[in-house]
Amino acid sequence: MGLVNLYSDTQTRPTSAMRTAMAEAEVGDEQRFEDPQVTALCARVAELLGMEAAVFLPSGTMCNEIAFRLHIRPGGDEAILHRTSHPIIAEAGGPAAFAGAMMYPLDTPLGMFTADDVRGALRRPGDRYSPRSRLVSVEQTTNMAGGRVWPLAQLRDVVAAAREAGLRLHMDGARLMNAVVASGVPASEMTAGFDTAWLDFTKGLGAPLGACLAGSAELIDEAWRYKQMLGGALRQAGIVAAGALYALDHHVDRLAEDHANAAVLARGLAELPGVTIDPDAVETNIVIFEHDDPEGLCARLREQDVVMGAIGPRRVRAVTHLDVDAEAIQRALHALERVCA
Amino acid sequence: MGLVNLYSDTQTRPTSAMRTAMAEAEVGDEQRFEDPQVTALCARVAELLGMEAAVFLPSGTMCNEIAFRLHIRPGGDEAILHRTSHPIIAEAGGPAAFAGAMMYPLDTPLGMFTADDVRGALRRPGDRYSPRSRLVSVEQTTNMAGGRVWPLAQLRDVVAAAREAGLRLHMDGARLMNAVVASGVPASEMTAGFDTAWLDFTKGLGAPLGACLAGSAELIDEAWRYKQMLGGALRQAGIVAAGALYALDHHVDRLAEDHANAAVLARGLAELPGVTIDPDAVETNIVIFEHDDPEGLCARLREQDVVMGAIGPRRVRAVTHLDVDAEAIQRALHALERVCA
Amino acid sequence: MGLVNLYSDTQTRPTSAMRTAMAEAEVGDEQRFEDPQVTALCARVAELLGMEAAVFLPSGTMCNEIAFRLHIRPGGDEAILHRTSHPIIAEAGGPAAFAGAMMYPLDTPLGMFTADDVRGALRRPGDRYSPRSRLVSVEQTTNMAGGRVWPLAQLRDVVAAAREAGLRLHMDGARLMNAVVASGVPASEMTAGFDTAWLDFTKGLGAPLGACLAGSAELIDEAWRYKQMLGGALRQAGIVAAGALYALDHHVDRLAEDHANAAVLARGLAELPGVTIDPDAVETNIVIFEHDDPEGLCARLREQDVVMGAIGPRRVRAVTHLDVDAEAIQRALHALERVCA
Amino acid sequence: MGLVNLYSDTQTRPTSAMRTAMAEAEVGDEQRFEDPQVTALCARVAELLGMEAAVFLPSGTMCNEIAFRLHIRPGGDEAILHRTSHPIIAEAGGPAAFAGAMMYPLDTPLGMFTADDVRGALRRPGDRYSPRSRLVSVEQTTNMAGGRVWPLAQLRDVVAAAREAGLRLHMDGARLMNAVVASGVPASEMTAGFDTAWLDFTKGLGAPLGACLAGSAELIDEAWRYKQMLGGALRQAGIVAAGALYALDHHVDRLAEDHANAAVLARGLAELPGVTIDPDAVETNIVIFEHDDPEGLCARLREQDVVMGAIGPRRVRAVTHLDVDAEAIQRALHALERVCA
Repeated sequence: MGLVNLYSDTQTRPTSAMRTAMAEAEVGDEQRFEDPQVTALCARVAELLGMEAAVFLPSGTMCNEIAFRLHIRPGGDEAILHRTSHPIIAEAGGPAAFAGAMMYPLDTPLGMFTADDVRGALRRPGDRYSPRSRLVSVEQTTNMAGGRVWPLAQLRDVVAAAREAGLRLHMDGARLMNAVVASGVPASEMTAGFDTAWLDFTKGLGAPLGACLAGSAELIDEAWRYKQMLGGALRQAGIVAAGALYALDHHVDRLAEDHANAAVLARGLAELPGVTIDPDAVETNIVIFEHDDPEGLCARLREQDVVMGAIGPRRVRAVTHLDVDAEAIQRALHALERVCA
Repeated sequence: MGLVNLYSDTQTRPTSAMRTAMAEAEVGDEQRFEDPQVTALCARVAELLGMEAAVFLPSGTMCNEIAFRLHIRPGGDEAILHRTSHPIIAEAGGPAAFAGAMMYPLDTPLGMFTADDVRGALRRPGDRYSPRSRLVSVEQTTNMAGGRVWPLAQLRDVVAAAREAGLRLHMDGARLMNAVVASGVPASEMTAGFDTAWLDFTKGLGAPLGACLAGSAELIDEAWRYKQMLGGALRQAGIVAAGALYALDHHVDRLAEDHANAAVLARGLAELPGVTIDPDAVETNIVIFEHDDPEGLCARLREQDVVMGAIGPRRVRAVTHLDVDAEAIQRALHALERVCA
Repeated sequence: MGLVNLYSDTQTRPTSAMRTAMAEAEVGDEQRFEDPQVTALCARVAELLGMEAAVFLPSGTMCNEIAFRLHIRPGGDEAILHRTSHPIIAEAGGPAAFAGAMMYPLDTPLGMFTADDVRGALRRPGDRYSPRSRLVSVEQTTNMAGGRVWPLAQLRDVVAAAREAGLRLHMDGARLMNAVVASGVPASEMTAGFDTAWLDFTKGLGAPLGACLAGSAELIDEAWRYKQMLGGALRQAGIVAAGALYALDHHVDRLAEDHANAAVLARGLAELPGVTIDPDAVETNIVIFEHDDPEGLCARLREQDVVMGAIGPRRVRAVTHLDVDAEAIQRALHALERVCA
Repeated sequence: MGLVNLYSDTQTRPTSAMRTAMAEAEVGDEQRFEDPQVTALCARVAELLGMEAAVFLPSGTMCNEIAFRLHIRPGGDEAILHRTSHPIIAEAGGPAAFAGAMMYPLDTPLGMFTADDVRGALRRPGDRYSPRSRLVSVEQTTNMAGGRVWPLAQLRDVVAAAREAGLRLHMDGARLMNAVVASGVPASEMTAGFDTAWLDFTKGLGAPLGACLAGSAELIDEAWRYKQMLGGALRQAGIVAAGALYALDHHVDRLAEDHANAAVLARGLAELPGVTIDPDAVETNIVIFEHDDPEGLCARLREQDVVMGAIGPRRVRAVTHLDVDAEAIQRALHALERVCA
């Protein structure tokens, strides 16, 4: 009867079987392409995302940082993305500080935007005064908007609008497999038309660290320079890549359980006094609800061995993952009932 | 009966008297502080803006670029400013590309924002994921919102909110003297509490080039490094500084004429079919109105020897300045009547 | 009778015991300071290097990149370091591209330099034209000069010269423990006076990945922002930190064997026709010798199951490490004899 | 009998005739290509340097800064140039801080280098660890080496070596016309094969400010973005461009007088006790000699109304220009005789 940790799916711990896979993995120097785990993982992710190539990196944040640097040219390029997206709120300002990107944040509903929103954000081509519109970046699923899945048609429209304007496209796939499992749409269809996309192994997939950035062979070759420059070039990385391979084999389909658990949690929350939530809006493993006192609520839940996160002055976030089963959700709901009573 | 050029107050040409002042100016090497015109100009601007020191620069854009670099530290700092402000729309992306600034654009009305808007944009202090809120940048007057004058009380509230959060403040004073003349508030009261502020000599003031960035002695000393780095360190700059000094002597009070001309133009426009404008909103020398076909309207006006600028799909901008007198405004209105008929 | 891999000590593979330590390690989210392995490792490295704090990073290159960013300010700072040092030759240009550092490369013998060399490289203080001398960076041991150990007295003189000029100091400790074992001088004495220093776990220490950057509590707190920005913030990093802890427990003293093996190899090489080497210059685990045809020599050795690396048009490098024992060295020498005959 | 100012040719003051040309110049908004003086000047410089296009900038330093940014890509590119060249010693670190360039300084004699020096500095193509060799930058004449003229054959060899390695070439032409007048080689032959080159109007040419960067139409179009970004986009710049045009008309041929004066000065210096100089090495208008106490010597000369500059612990620099005639040189020599006696 330990902690029910709904703070984040980044806090999953490697399972015993995953640890064994890692301990037994044959490894080599990944910088010389001699690590069989890393090689296999990159090939697998490239295929999964329908891209020519992929590169293994220590984190999803590094995938975003490198992708921005790949796309943003030094002469004042601008990225169009949601104001709540990871490159804006959670990369320590790296897109500007490292890649020199001007940011055009969109304030559209649910962390998603439309082809028209993209068109409305475009700078006039050839204007040397304004930043140059260069990149559209999409987060699948939308973290801060509650794990929403970008519909395929909307993705395709955004791709078409960006392409028409000569822009590059990047998909932050921190929780891409949640979107795939929730929607039944293959990952490669979601990433179609994107120049770069990445997959994280630490969140719902439960590996201890690592992510893969995929794209054309040319872009991934260039990405290797930045991997080296940023210090993401590892040595016997197969130890951790083996965990990622294990996750792809065993932890994808089970994301459906996390989604079911999140739905149960959301419906339970909707019954509670002082809580505002639309349970139908919970599509994957992220449950965000409104409350008058997020910090206080989380503190009281913590006393009941339930961990959630206050995000801003009015909102609480709970995330389901492989360390949280259906029974734990019930315990979380009981704790919420006591605390909200 | 030449052109009525309302395209921009940046297009004023030096008067005969200003040219004489420039031609006769004693000059020296400004990099060694041996140019008497530059020295006098910097002292004068520092006093006018209530700052310890000032540095002469080739343009207002360089003032902004250097100010951002002075305030924005390399570790992911963020600037809070209006989405239509000059650093975002008209500096070729320099604030990110050169200073590495993350941008937090505000979409508040009239190009201005309140202390509450600033507070709402602040990142959580000490959070290492988010950008670090660092700088509030204000444009006085607001160019793309139609030359609006920030009220003194609002400036003071914004300063207080920024200071409370430990932020720096910068004022883009491209048309600061228009605000001063329109409101009767001295420049130094407007800039009180700001770390840096600048004055442009090319716009309503009518000099051919140049601007002065003012701030503490320490910041201006540091600004000199960036002046050198960017290539803004000149030699016998007194030739142009003499024009700026002449402008401060002779072209400040007369900005009231430009404002009166703009008001007449705005009231005339309000009578025209197909034109939407609130003439009471025209406080200084910028007149922005809505029209269904800005490009077409401007093209037809051009045939009538009247020049205005289409800014975006629905708006036209006309700017009064010292090369446009009351009679020229009447000619412009007659042309507009013909074209809008 | 497998391969004798003397290509680099970066190619060591985790031992069975190290793998077990990793597989059994209790882990948590290192970003929330909840990973006991990472916490223990950072404390241990800080103490070892005589610093207040340390941060775990995916690679030594990231240690250098972050250290440069910590020390180099945006206004044109310059680093003084050897022309063959890692930040210049092996970080994809990151010190300039990421940290904006001007580089002042020294061409002194053996990869080391003196206090006088530092003084000779200083820019005039307060000069706004030149870069600002800011950082001295030292590589212990010197990789491209053949694993030479900076003598303690020389380090102290360099520290004193840098301090007198108000400069920061950084030690690249990719092979610092080799220097410690070879000289008997404790690591904390070598790093005394340095602002930052780091230790790599992948080279002679044999862990699969990771390094720790140490410094004052304030600098390491700031380093966390860059760790996040660059994508070095991991999750259950204890899996790999456990390998590093194991390495510190079991693989430090045995570096003496690598040094002994390198000495045997060097003395053997000195006997061979066509090879130029001073065996007395081999102080640690790196053996560099001259040959007329490095590429050809390495290719022929490879056919004999011996791997070395051609570095430049005249030099070959061989590095001993825990996967190469005394018998393997004999095999390498026999192969060399055949090939050089 | 005023000051004999040999401190620098940057300190020339506009002549009366040049001032008249400036005062009478027809001007317009250079940002809209409506300034006839700027247009004429750019066309003239482009032709003079054998390039497709040119852009007017406030200073030569900005020419260098923009050229580096045009050539250096964000992924860790490196520039090969002399250690005493302007981008390294006199741009406040801008090539790294602004353009992100790694610097490969050469220590070859007389501020010049050969094709072999370039080849020796090249990084291995395709290596993702090292910086990428990208740019060769040449200073014609060499300032800190005493105004030496790069021989045409040597320039051509350097161009060929750089081209063979796929590198870009840039010529810093701060004193290019001195080289042209001294050697009789047309400017366009000197710049043949270079991607960018620039001409300064403030030094021997005597204009108060400004320089023109020339290159292909495509590069100059891109340069305009950086001109805007850095704040080099001016308004009625024709006022100063007129001075530059006047200088091209009237102040080029007379550089021969400066060279003759410098030769006289050098020969006189060679006779003095305590002075070391090879008068035959003085090819243009820069005279550098060695002395035991440069600061003291310059201070004593200053008391005799002669100004020279101490550059470093052993050297003094004197520069001839249009404000210094043959008689002034005699006065300088008399002062030197008294001071050195």
